[in-house]
Amino acid sequence: MTVIRTLHHFPLDPASRQVRLALAEKRLAFDEVLVRYWEQPKAFTALNPSGLTPVLIERTGDAQVVVCEVRAILEHLEHQNPEPDLLGASSADRAEARRLMQWFDRKFDSEVNAYLLHEKLEKRLLKLGAPDLYNMRQGRDGLRVHLIYLEKLLAARDWLAGGRLSLGDFAAAANISVLDYFGDIPWRDFPAVKTWYMRIKSRPAFRPLLADRWPGLAPSSSYDDLDF
Amino acid sequence: MTVIRTLHHFPLDPASRQVRLALAEKRLAFDEVLVRYWEQPKAFTALNPSGLTPVLIERTGDAQVVVCEVRAILEHLEHQNPEPDLLGASSADRAEARRLMQWFDRKFDSEVNAYLLHEKLEKRLLKLGAPDLYNMRQGRDGLRVHLIYLEKLLAARDWLAGGRLSLGDFAAAANISVLDYFGDIPWRDFPAVKTWYMRIKSRPAFRPLLADRWPGLAPSSSYDDLDF
Repeated sequence: MTVIRTLHHFPLDPASRQVRLALAEKRLAFDEVLVRYWEQPKAFTALNPSGLTPVLIERTGDAQVVVCEVRAILEHLEHQNPEPDLLGASSADRAEARRLMQWFDRKFDSEVNAYLLHEKLEKRLLKLGAPDLYNMRQGRDGLRVHLIYLEKLLAARDWLAGGRLSLGDFAAAANISVLDYFGDIPWRDFPAVKTWYMRIKSRPAFRPLLADRWPGLAPSSSYDDLDF
Repeated sequence: MTVIRTLHHFPLDPASRQVRLALAEKRLAFDEVLVRYWEQPKAFTALNPSGLTPVLIERTGDAQVVVCEVRAILEHLEHQNPEPDLLGASSADRAEARRLMQWFDRKFDSEVNAYLLHEKLEKRLLKLGAPDLYNMRQGRDGLRVHLIYLEKLLAARDWLAGGRLSLGDFAAAANISVLDYFGDIPWRDFPAVKTWYMRIKSRPAFRPLLADRWPGLAPSSSYDDLDF
């Protein structure tokens, strides 16, 4: 029976972007509902009590499964639609892809997004006033440390988790692409990361992300440029 | 071939505790290496560049797999040792268990642990001075909101994710047990959460956690009491 998918998401949310990339890479069609999560819409918190995007709903005939939160959705999609495999064939491959995912969930989010995205995105959405320059500096310093780490990984690997594209790459690309929307990635200093991002950016799965625009927030000039 | 397991962990780390509970529930023996993660020991950051506990090493003959970070380890263990099943049989069960895990990773951690555990535990380990009373208050207020949510879930369910014990319960119990070590859970006001915790606490898998002590940090008087 056909599965009808609906993804509730926010276009500039790194967690939502990971799910959109995985769905597209697996060629799974889905309807979209854009969630203004910061307004805590009741219809959405009824779906996911945490109030956080993304949420995937799958309808098969009369049956429905609601899958909340990025990690749950990605594990669900891998299990239900194993081709193409985005986690890896061996235990070691899967461990490495999941290590990178949690790196971004836990470390990148608290050391970079909590400063930079908070100042540049959340404060505008929540109308909390002008960005705090000290926080922006903290976030940019944190970002450089992460880019140095990715540059080192990519000196020895084609993709972040090893020889093949994985959810580890999507975790990184989803986070980096949102910061790139705001023009915050110092590409010049990180040639290996830039080459890797050019390859990810050229994939058909990435196209919808490059078309994202949010009212009042213009993207940087090279955001959707494949040859940046 | 026999699998030799070594878990690198910190006893009062909620993420490490989830892995210890899952290993014990699956009756998988393991050696332990206690990590003073806040000192960033080189031998440990060589294993896991994020510097965060837990890390599980599995040796089978000459082969070795290093699995870093709690989510990667728990998914690995479910895949390699499916009995007893701690994720759930249906897609909906697994989605619910994983939703709760990420609830604690993302929401509980930033709304409760970032205040309460930071003030009571991390500041002592890092010798950062006396706890900040405003932060403690923030953390305790956040904790009450989470306990109200758990109390509501448990009014309709035997276990947090539904009819069976799951990794969702372990995520909750691991976080709550560390705060209980410091005497911070207002049990009196949350009878359903208390009953649920008594059941978890009585499981053989929980015993090693109740025996945990860290030098200079005494547990609350009822921490290891099964009838608290």
